[in-house]
Amino acid sequence: MPKFVKRSSKKAGSSPGTLIYVGKEKTHTSLMHLFSYSKSEIIEKVGKSIGTLKHYIDSGNVNWININAIHESSVIEAIGEMFHIHPLALEDIMNTAQRPKMEDYDDYIFLVVKMITFEDLKNELEIEQISIVLGDYYLLAFQEKEGDVFDPIRDRLRLGKGKILERKADYLAYALLDAVVDNYFTALEKIGEKIELLEDRILNDPKPETLEVIHTLKRELVYLRKSVWPLREIISGLQRSESKIIDQSTSVYLRDLYDHTIQAIDTIETYRDIISGMLDTYLTAVSNRMNEVMKVLTIIATIFIPLTFIAGVYGMNFHGMPELSWPWAYPLGFWSGIVIIGGFLVLYFKHKKWL
Amino acid sequence: MPKFVKRSSKKAGSSPGTLIYVGKEKTHTSLMHLFSYSKSEIIEKVGKSIGTLKHYIDSGNVNWININAIHESSVIEAIGEMFHIHPLALEDIMNTAQRPKMEDYDDYIFLVVKMITFEDLKNELEIEQISIVLGDYYLLAFQEKEGDVFDPIRDRLRLGKGKILERKADYLAYALLDAVVDNYFTALEKIGEKIELLEDRILNDPKPETLEVIHTLKRELVYLRKSVWPLREIISGLQRSESKIIDQSTSVYLRDLYDHTIQAIDTIETYRDIISGMLDTYLTAVSNRMNEVMKVLTIIATIFIPLTFIAGVYGMNFHGMPELSWPWAYPLGFWSGIVIIGGFLVLYFKHKKWL
Amino acid sequence: MPKFVKRSSKKAGSSPGTLIYVGKEKTHTSLMHLFSYSKSEIIEKVGKSIGTLKHYIDSGNVNWININAIHESSVIEAIGEMFHIHPLALEDIMNTAQRPKMEDYDDYIFLVVKMITFEDLKNELEIEQISIVLGDYYLLAFQEKEGDVFDPIRDRLRLGKGKILERKADYLAYALLDAVVDNYFTALEKIGEKIELLEDRILNDPKPETLEVIHTLKRELVYLRKSVWPLREIISGLQRSESKIIDQSTSVYLRDLYDHTIQAIDTIETYRDIISGMLDTYLTAVSNRMNEVMKVLTIIATIFIPLTFIAGVYGMNFHGMPELSWPWAYPLGFWSGIVIIGGFLVLYFKHKKWL
Amino acid sequence: MPKFVKRSSKKAGSSPGTLIYVGKEKTHTSLMHLFSYSKSEIIEKVGKSIGTLKHYIDSGNVNWININAIHESSVIEAIGEMFHIHPLALEDIMNTAQRPKMEDYDDYIFLVVKMITFEDLKNELEIEQISIVLGDYYLLAFQEKEGDVFDPIRDRLRLGKGKILERKADYLAYALLDAVVDNYFTALEKIGEKIELLEDRILNDPKPETLEVIHTLKRELVYLRKSVWPLREIISGLQRSESKIIDQSTSVYLRDLYDHTIQAIDTIETYRDIISGMLDTYLTAVSNRMNEVMKVLTIIATIFIPLTFIAGVYGMNFHGMPELSWPWAYPLGFWSGIVIIGGFLVLYFKHKKWL
Amino acid sequence: MPKFVKRSSKKAGSSPGTLIYVGKEKTHTSLMHLFSYSKSEIIEKVGKSIGTLKHYIDSGNVNWININAIHESSVIEAIGEMFHIHPLALEDIMNTAQRPKMEDYDDYIFLVVKMITFEDLKNELEIEQISIVLGDYYLLAFQEKEGDVFDPIRDRLRLGKGKILERKADYLAYALLDAVVDNYFTALEKIGEKIELLEDRILNDPKPETLEVIHTLKRELVYLRKSVWPLREIISGLQRSESKIIDQSTSVYLRDLYDHTIQAIDTIETYRDIISGMLDTYLTAVSNRMNEVMKVLTIIATIFIPLTFIAGVYGMNFHGMPELSWPWAYPLGFWSGIVIIGGFLVLYFKHKKWL
Repeated sequence: MPKFVKRSSKKAGSSPGTLIYVGKEKTHTSLMHLFSYSKSEIIEKVGKSIGTLKHYIDSGNVNWININAIHESSVIEAIGEMFHIHPLALEDIMNTAQRPKMEDYDDYIFLVVKMITFEDLKNELEIEQISIVLGDYYLLAFQEKEGDVFDPIRDRLRLGKGKILERKADYLAYALLDAVVDNYFTALEKIGEKIELLEDRILNDPKPETLEVIHTLKRELVYLRKSVWPLREIISGLQRSESKIIDQSTSVYLRDLYDHTIQAIDTIETYRDIISGMLDTYLTAVSNRMNEVMKVLTIIATIFIPLTFIAGVYGMNFHGMPELSWPWAYPLGFWSGIVIIGGFLVLYFKHKKWL
Repeated sequence: MPKFVKRSSKKAGSSPGTLIYVGKEKTHTSLMHLFSYSKSEIIEKVGKSIGTLKHYIDSGNVNWININAIHESSVIEAIGEMFHIHPLALEDIMNTAQRPKMEDYDDYIFLVVKMITFEDLKNELEIEQISIVLGDYYLLAFQEKEGDVFDPIRDRLRLGKGKILERKADYLAYALLDAVVDNYFTALEKIGEKIELLEDRILNDPKPETLEVIHTLKRELVYLRKSVWPLREIISGLQRSESKIIDQSTSVYLRDLYDHTIQAIDTIETYRDIISGMLDTYLTAVSNRMNEVMKVLTIIATIFIPLTFIAGVYGMNFHGMPELSWPWAYPLGFWSGIVIIGGFLVLYFKHKKWL
Repeated sequence: MPKFVKRSSKKAGSSPGTLIYVGKEKTHTSLMHLFSYSKSEIIEKVGKSIGTLKHYIDSGNVNWININAIHESSVIEAIGEMFHIHPLALEDIMNTAQRPKMEDYDDYIFLVVKMITFEDLKNELEIEQISIVLGDYYLLAFQEKEGDVFDPIRDRLRLGKGKILERKADYLAYALLDAVVDNYFTALEKIGEKIELLEDRILNDPKPETLEVIHTLKRELVYLRKSVWPLREIISGLQRSESKIIDQSTSVYLRDLYDHTIQAIDTIETYRDIISGMLDTYLTAVSNRMNEVMKVLTIIATIFIPLTFIAGVYGMNFHGMPELSWPWAYPLGFWSGIVIIGGFLVLYFKHKKWL
Repeated sequence: MPKFVKRSSKKAGSSPGTLIYVGKEKTHTSLMHLFSYSKSEIIEKVGKSIGTLKHYIDSGNVNWININAIHESSVIEAIGEMFHIHPLALEDIMNTAQRPKMEDYDDYIFLVVKMITFEDLKNELEIEQISIVLGDYYLLAFQEKEGDVFDPIRDRLRLGKGKILERKADYLAYALLDAVVDNYFTALEKIGEKIELLEDRILNDPKPETLEVIHTLKRELVYLRKSVWPLREIISGLQRSESKIIDQSTSVYLRDLYDHTIQAIDTIETYRDIISGMLDTYLTAVSNRMNEVMKVLTIIATIFIPLTFIAGVYGMNFHGMPELSWPWAYPLGFWSGIVIIGGFLVLYFKHKKWL
Repeated sequence: MPKFVKRSSKKAGSSPGTLIYVGKEKTHTSLMHLFSYSKSEIIEKVGKSIGTLKHYIDSGNVNWININAIHESSVIEAIGEMFHIHPLALEDIMNTAQRPKMEDYDDYIFLVVKMITFEDLKNELEIEQISIVLGDYYLLAFQEKEGDVFDPIRDRLRLGKGKILERKADYLAYALLDAVVDNYFTALEKIGEKIELLEDRILNDPKPETLEVIHTLKRELVYLRKSVWPLREIISGLQRSESKIIDQSTSVYLRDLYDHTIQAIDTIETYRDIISGMLDTYLTAVSNRMNEVMKVLTIIATIFIPLTFIAGVYGMNFHGMPELSWPWAYPLGFWSGIVIIGGFLVLYFKHKKWL
């Protein structure tokens, strides 16, 4: 899971708008993936530099360019120049610690969202920043790594299915955001499963490790929350936007998306509630267990202490202790006394429900 | 009780507006139930397909069609085509994990609410999603199962009683929502009874099971809250709506309904307060009990420890221990010393209110 | 104290606007109490049916009719017909579990408030619902029982004192609400006294019963809060109302009343704070006490355990134990050793401030 | 410190606007203190009745009249008549439990604020109500006692210094409020000192008395909060007021005052945070201390229990116990065994960091 | 770290607008640092009095004057006179306890912000107040000490790099604020590192000192929060400002800055959450540890208590105790009994997972 603050140390002191990649070191080759489509044609191209794709962009088609080269400032700069993107937006694209947001730059709308996937292998959440520059007839999507969450959309495009072909870039943006939000639910479902597993374990076998799992879950939800909450504003911002880029007919889809986001937020809040309840339950379970142990131990001691006293009494060396010489005093008198007293105490504690 | 997240796994990757039923598997026959009424006539019909009912719909009457076939996408699709319902609304109808909401599609208003009933047999809350498509002269109500909560309204219709016959479909929608909200109070009353039962048990006999009941109640209230809170917005949305479907004269009824919803929310919040108070009381009661036990045990030990010391003293083998040979030393001296010291300690602890 | 939810079970399934009394069973005779006044005359009448009072109502005077027959639906219906009151308002009048509210029905304003009195005998709060229908020249006040909180206002009317005679019904409504709010302060003062009593007891003699009193106080404040909070909205609604029924000159009085309500809310919130602080103090006090006890007991045991060991040593049967035969070994050596070791431990624990 | 609720018992049932003094009994002579000033002249007069000051009031000067006779309803009534003050305002002046507020009565603005001073002798906060009636050319200030907080302003007036002389009564009101807010900071500083003292004590010597001090501080902050919070609204109300009494040029001063009030509120909230942190620290410190004690005691017992067992073994009377007759068994064998076992346990506990 | 309240004691009673330095005593020489720049020229000057810089100010260039003489009221007064700054603003400049704020004085905008740096040597946060007076063509920045946070901006100016030269003073103000916010992230990163360090220590070696570190961190975050929160309002105030001083083209930069501030606030809130979670973890860890110790000790005692009883039994002096004279009774019978019983108890406790 990423650190909390990444922005500062590499950047403090540099001029605003300076392009500095803030994220893990990357070496893989950067690729650009273009879809240029209209009702009548679909073109798909993969290139290493923006130059090779230039040809398709001004064709009147809708152009979806997917870029995973956000660690190379030269590439980003070139794209920025070609599409007249503001330096501050470029800076945000490269800063993978950027908070999700929506900014209207008149000619284009700039979006930053967080893709959250659950990595089954590592058994933890993976967060990836996706920046979208949405123009009238183009959409630039910047990803940290070659993702596969948009593959279903690509497949639909390739098959010529769905409404995307009939519409402008704003509907494509909606489709991408919808895919992102759907993924939140997949992540939430995984967390839900973890929570259910945990609930059983807490009551039956509370251990310090359980506590750690609870804290991890709690923190994962904090991350999810930080990613999803701003999305609400982003989508309602798109909905209320007076930008000519967002078609009125897309509004009903955005409303639906907004609704899904609210549902994700609801689920996150519910999980947070459940987890803090679990923390309480865990602490109660642990302390109950400990109390039970201490109680049983104390009871054992309490039963033996009077018995030891009696044994002590008959170990005394007083001269005139008539009991000592009574016949059967030891085998019968003493031991039956011990059994009676011990038994009485056990029964008494049982009666009091202490045992 | 339903799981928290159902939306995602079946849907992630599919195109928005794809009709996928999200809910428990169903096999029973789907039925459509039609009421077509005006001031002068009331027609009631039950059919298996929407086609058989078509005849009545364009009659100028108000038509209430109740459908419990939400697991069959073909039926939903057919209805959607007939009434020109937006694919996203159809998708929400089939998604039983949908959050309650109100959406104005100009030609019709789309509502999703949650019906909550208390199942006496299972001793738990049952949640059912009810989707309503409200047009000028028709109302489609989609239910998960053949419900009986709307039966009183049907009876009133059959008897020709009440104001429903004199009014348009919006009043019928109000009547249905009113029935839903009245049911919330029935559920809340059941929870209220459970709470009262619990309060007695907590003070008199706190057990780990009690804790579990508290947690169940807490979670049930979370569900209720998630169902009722959005209803507030829905009803106030209907009230403020400028849609021509909602008649001005219905507004006073919606205001009343709004008021009831607020009261339900109030009650839920109060219950939540009470339950978290109960949790504290439970923990306090348990720890008091444990403390009492430990205190009594410790006191018993504390009384016997000095006595054991005395017995130990007279078990020593020193040569010149004059007490050992005093007459009556053991039967009188020793035992009365023990009784005096023990008695003093008991009285002292009683005086200190420790015992 | 009333149950939390009363609305539902008697009503679920019935048509909205059906008059069903929701409250305790009542048998006493219902009475109507009329004051018909203007600057020049004051008429007071008591009648058993609204018919007998009809004569006075259309006289141009201001008419204050006090009704305590809210359990008789026929009476309520008759009144509703005479004053053209909406069925939903009548339903609310009979539903004594109604949340406080203000509704403007153009011809009249409908108010529901809660009167709270402290019953000295039962030592608990009593809640009574008061519904007011405020027209231009009439005011209907519906009470659950023959109350005496409005008696000072009646006395002022009878004596012809105060500004009421010179003004329309809206000022009378203000006077009634003012009496209700003044009563909140009386109730709050009683609770304040209880809190002060409790604070002493908590520090000096914390018992489980104290805990119960704290919880009762907490719940009483929840009730008060639920009654007073909505009043704020009601009064500010009256103030901002554009209804012709509320005279502009009454506005300054409503502002004052609003101010009092805020002060009551403030006091309630302060009390809630204090009470949750008290709960903490109680728990701390109890656990401190228990800890003290356990510490003292453990110290006693700790002092005797080494001493018992020494006694045990000299009870051993080793052959060559020279100490045993030393002269004065027992009376002097042993006992002074015991006293020195025991004394040292006591002093050490005192020094450590453990004792 | 004052009780929480004073309004009710003396007033319930009385007509609104009735003048009843709510506060401590007073007997001292009431005095009126007049400053009548303009750019060119400053007149200072002290009188026992408002009549003696009448002469100066209509002179066209700004008149500041300070009155500490708020317990005498006749005086208040006379002043009310002379300046045409609304009876509800007069009632609030005499009710020293009034919540701080600002009310615009067109001809004058009515303000109630709380002066808070820290009484060094009693070591507690003293709260005094100050009511201000601010007209165009006059300002009436009502105080509970002859205060000295306004003395610096009086001195500045006497010396003819500051901007007050050049301005209307609104600037004087600002100056008085500024003095009140400055005093809040003095009180806060005292509380800050107490908090610092307390912090040391909590860590080094936590006692039940410390807990009481914490609770007192907490309650003092509740009082401060209740006094300062409404001031924010009051000042912003003055700022936004469209009354002709508030000159536009005073607005920048009010903005500054508003800023100071926010800072006082900030400080109060910070202190509240710190104090609840201290409460936690106290509880943790106490429980740590107790745990330490219990641990040490238990360790002592744990060391001696096996030793006592060994002593017990060699006190047994079995016939064939060869160890008993070994030479040096007791002085060397036994005691070195004891020392070795005891020492091992001590070292083991030290190693485990339990000791 | 600074005290919480500094405003009051030096100022209470003094006239508003009186210039009193509120901060640490200072003796170093005050310096003024001027940058006068336009697209074509950059002039840098350092002077001891404002007089020596006067010459450059009216040149039509943008003038950035940095002043660290805020402890000398004469200097501040002289500057105030030259630039016609309101006395209240001057007062705020000298009051280093001023809350961050933005005030529009028409001719200039007055800003107070807090610079936060992490002092590695002292290992704590350092807070410095920076006041900015922003006019059309001049910017006065008042610092508490000769800072170096603005050095990168100075370097960029000297090199003639960046957009600053091409723009008016408002962009310079943005650049300064941006540097301040970037520094918050540096401070937050340090705190983040501390938190990570702490998290390890809490689980592995919880000590009272850890608690103190947690409390220090908590308080540092309170300070950061108090500094950063108001900045949000300040920047959004600048953005929405209708002042002619803020150029429309600067708005997009302010939006970016606003976004950074929100991110800083987010991080602070997340840290606060984490730290309160750590507090809980610490308390749980400490109490678990203590419980473990007590449990082990109690188990040791519990094992030896029955054994001691057995030893006591065979130390009794009854006449007929046949076991005593059995051959091998002691070496075999007794000791194997002890081992069996002790072993059984150990195994039993292990089986129960108590050991």
